Amino acid sequence: MNWNIQPLKEEVKKSLQHKIDTKTKPLGALGQLETLALQIGLIQQTTSPKLTEPHLMVFAADHGIATSGVSAYPQEVTHQMVLNFLAGGAAINVFAAQHNITLKVVDAGVNHSFENVQGLVNAKVAFGTESFLNGPAMTMAQCKQALAKGSDLVEEIAKTGCNVVGFGEMGIGNTSSASMLMHVVTGIPLQECIGAGTGLNSQGLKQKYEILSSALSANGKPNNAHSILATYGGFEIAMMCGAMLKAAELKMLVLVDGFIATSAFLMAAEFNASAKEYAIFCHKSDEKGHALLLEFLEANPLLDLQMRLGEGTGCTMAYPIIQSAVNFLNEMASFESAGVSDK
Amino acid sequence: MNWNIQPLKEEVKKSLQHKIDTKTKPLGALGQLETLALQIGLIQQTTSPKLTEPHLMVFAADHGIATSGVSAYPQEVTHQMVLNFLAGGAAINVFAAQHNITLKVVDAGVNHSFENVQGLVNAKVAFGTESFLNGPAMTMAQCKQALAKGSDLVEEIAKTGCNVVGFGEMGIGNTSSASMLMHVVTGIPLQECIGAGTGLNSQGLKQKYEILSSALSANGKPNNAHSILATYGGFEIAMMCGAMLKAAELKMLVLVDGFIATSAFLMAAEFNASAKEYAIFCHKSDEKGHALLLEFLEANPLLDLQMRLGEGTGCTMAYPIIQSAVNFLNEMASFESAGVSDK
Repeated sequence: MNWNIQPLKEEVKKSLQHKIDTKTKPLGALGQLETLALQIGLIQQTTSPKLTEPHLMVFAADHGIATSGVSAYPQEVTHQMVLNFLAGGAAINVFAAQHNITLKVVDAGVNHSFENVQGLVNAKVAFGTESFLNGPAMTMAQCKQALAKGSDLVEEIAKTGCNVVGFGEMGIGNTSSASMLMHVVTGIPLQECIGAGTGLNSQGLKQKYEILSSALSANGKPNNAHSILATYGGFEIAMMCGAMLKAAELKMLVLVDGFIATSAFLMAAEFNASAKEYAIFCHKSDEKGHALLLEFLEANPLLDLQMRLGEGTGCTMAYPIIQSAVNFLNEMASFESAGVSDK
Repeated sequence: MNWNIQPLKEEVKKSLQHKIDTKTKPLGALGQLETLALQIGLIQQTTSPKLTEPHLMVFAADHGIATSGVSAYPQEVTHQMVLNFLAGGAAINVFAAQHNITLKVVDAGVNHSFENVQGLVNAKVAFGTESFLNGPAMTMAQCKQALAKGSDLVEEIAKTGCNVVGFGEMGIGNTSSASMLMHVVTGIPLQECIGAGTGLNSQGLKQKYEILSSALSANGKPNNAHSILATYGGFEIAMMCGAMLKAAELKMLVLVDGFIATSAFLMAAEFNASAKEYAIFCHKSDEKGHALLLEFLEANPLLDLQMRLGEGTGCTMAYPIIQSAVNFLNEMASFESAGVSDK
């Protein structure tokens, strides 16, 4: 698969920067909002960008590794939480509704028969991955299927007029996948890539490290993005990766959530480095590996609220800030129009 | 003046914490949102708090010291920006409108005759303070007048049903006042309390330090909050201080903005330490002294967006996060109600 992602054109950069700089505020005083306004204007190639039909996609899947003792919660929580998303009771429901963001819940590979539950997008690749303890989590065909399906789903959403899409996930055991992807791609020591996930104690954390070390010895480090993703990924991670790449290709804003979503983005950037120009890193998760992963990506996340929930909650918390960046650019007066003395 | 601020009662704490902990998320996974939910529940003495009729008060005033070369902008910008606020063209207008926050612009002591401009709250103490280069910025009577007026204005706002109020400011030269208040109250070296304000270069910053050092030599360190505020404060700072104290007395949430608003809060806490239990520190400003001032107050601000604009913009950016804290508490399902397995 190929994604034809355009590096940002610089044509409007000068007029955008001029518009930002002549607003009635000291130069640079809106900090990251100014950086965002510039990025969004460049993506949309206009000095008057708009956010339209915002969506949040939550990809859910199960992980073979989850049954090996890497998580504080049992695997059944994945499908129970999917039902909770559909019933409107999860954190992501509350925050998406608060900001009028359309929520799409995608079964990328949950180990449960949902039997056409209303509202669920059925994109199931399989009933969970295999454990990557002794062999790849998925076949290369499954990996490509997940990537393509994510890509297709974003194409559908783009047809609604959406130009900003956030990515979240649910999958018991998926911090283990994310840690492995992070370690293999970045070379950061495995120990630094592993955190408490949904709430392991120090004994549980030690066990997680041992299990993941052993998986690393068994499978090694594949030398290309497809193989890395197939070996250590999850269906939700692979599908999200494909969705992110298509969103960037379609010049949408790509809102990246926490540790797992960032690991999916890491893979997306391996497939096509230009994806990064379309990405907004929404928050720094409290999950241990996230800070280093963001640093590796040279990302400056908008929020640090000590959250570690996933589901795309960081995207929804950051969304009003992104909206503010667009709003100040469109609505603030200039020094000239307001009759305010400049320096 | 006395403010009768009640320390928070702990009666609902246990049931609040239980409600937070049984929501469908790992324990503590919503980070600062959980801390906020607990604080707001305790302030409102309920497990189902609500935010009603949010207001943002922008206090504007001029400073005698501004004419001594401490600012990158001329003093006239204060009144020009007040007119910009009233015309709807400033950053705070854009962000307050985005979040349906009612904006009140208060002339606490601007050096300009507004002649009953529509929409402006006239609370002018005088046409700017005296320069504190050789003597106090205001008389004790003026200081008390400003405190009382701020208090009265909040009382008016409370009558609308408002239970959450943010505080911002505009006043060319007011980082100098804030730096002096910070230094005198906290004992942190003056050099550490001084920053670039609206945009001084290193030469300007050096000059600002020399001017403020000289003022410090002339006036010394008064030994009580009233005298400190009268000597080095501004009318907007004193009025905001009185407003913050009354808001806490009325059990409103007190949203504290950036460096100058935090210096007003510092004084409020000197008058009554219990004010802190009602305060939410909205963001860490890029203005140099703010990080240390927040640290002194043991405050953990919600945002760090490298903003340094004042006007209450940090409060408006943080407001949706505070709303999210209330929303998750009221709207999320519990493990039991959603049928999700707990650890």
